[in-house]
Amino acid sequence: MLVDLDFEKGGGLLPVVVQDAATGDMLMLAYMNAEAFRETVRTRQACYFSRSRNQLWRKGESSGHVQHVKEIRVDCDADTVLLKVEQVGGAACHEGYHSCFFRRHTSDDQWEVTGTPVFDPSTVYGPGAS
Amino acid sequence: MLVDLDFEKGGGLLPVVVQDAATGDMLMLAYMNAEAFRETVRTRQACYFSRSRNQLWRKGESSGHVQHVKEIRVDCDADTVLLKVEQVGGAACHEGYHSCFFRRHTSDDQWEVTGTPVFDPSTVYGPGAS
Repeated sequence: MLVDLDFEKGGGLLPVVVQDAATGDMLMLAYMNAEAFRETVRTRQACYFSRSRNQLWRKGESSGHVQHVKEIRVDCDADTVLLKVEQVGGAACHEGYHSCFFRRHTSDDQWEVTGTPVFDPSTVYGPGAS
Repeated sequence: MLVDLDFEKGGGLLPVVVQDAATGDMLMLAYMNAEAFRETVRTRQACYFSRSRNQLWRKGESSGHVQHVKEIRVDCDADTVLLKVEQVGGAACHEGYHSCFFRRHTSDDQWEVTGTPVFDPSTVYGPGAS
C-alpha cells in the first residue's frame, strides 16, 4: 500500500509519537521532516528534526542513548508517525526520566511528578546542561 | 507543582497523544487549545480542537464513542499532553479501527494494514461518511 506521508500540513514537519516497544510506555513526542524519516528507516535508529536547533537530531548522538526502532506506524490521515523503540540507557527524557511525560495532572488542578530520574543529566550532557 | 501548558509554540494548539488506559495501545493524536484542555479536565471526557473544522471537537459527540479520561500527563517541555482513556465502542479511528495507527511500515518500504475495523464507518456516521 502506497501512502505518502503528509509533511505539508505541518509546514514540512510531522509529529512522531515514541513508545517503548517492550512496555508500551509513552516516551516522548518529537518531529520529523522527510529527511529525518528516511534516515530513521535507513539506519533503524530514531532521527528527528529539532525545531529549536533547526536541524536533524540523531537522538542519542551525544549521550549514547539512541533509540533502536522496532516498528514504524502511520495514522489514518498520514500526518502522524508512531515509533516503537528500544531506548538505550532506559531514559528518553533529557531531564533523566524514563519518559518525558513524568508529570501527572491531579484532582486539585496541579501537576505531580511521578517516578524518579534514571540518570543525572549533568553527568550525561555535562554540567549546566539540562 | 505549577506548570503552564505551552500553547504558544503551536500557535494556540498543542498535540495530544491518546493512549488506551487498559492496554497501553496508542490510539490517536489530536490537538487541544486552552479551552479544549479545560473542558477535558472539567468533564473527564476528551475534548479536542478540530484543525479542519476550526472548532472544539467533543470526541464521540456524534458517534457516541466518547473517551473517558483516566489520566492526564504533560511532557518535560509542557508542550505535549498525554491522555490515558477508556475508548467507548472500542475504536478511536473514524475509519473504524481500534487505533488510528493501523498501518505498519514494511521492510520493502510499503505500508501494510494490520488488524480489522471494529465498526463500519457508514453505520456509525451515515452513508458517504468516512
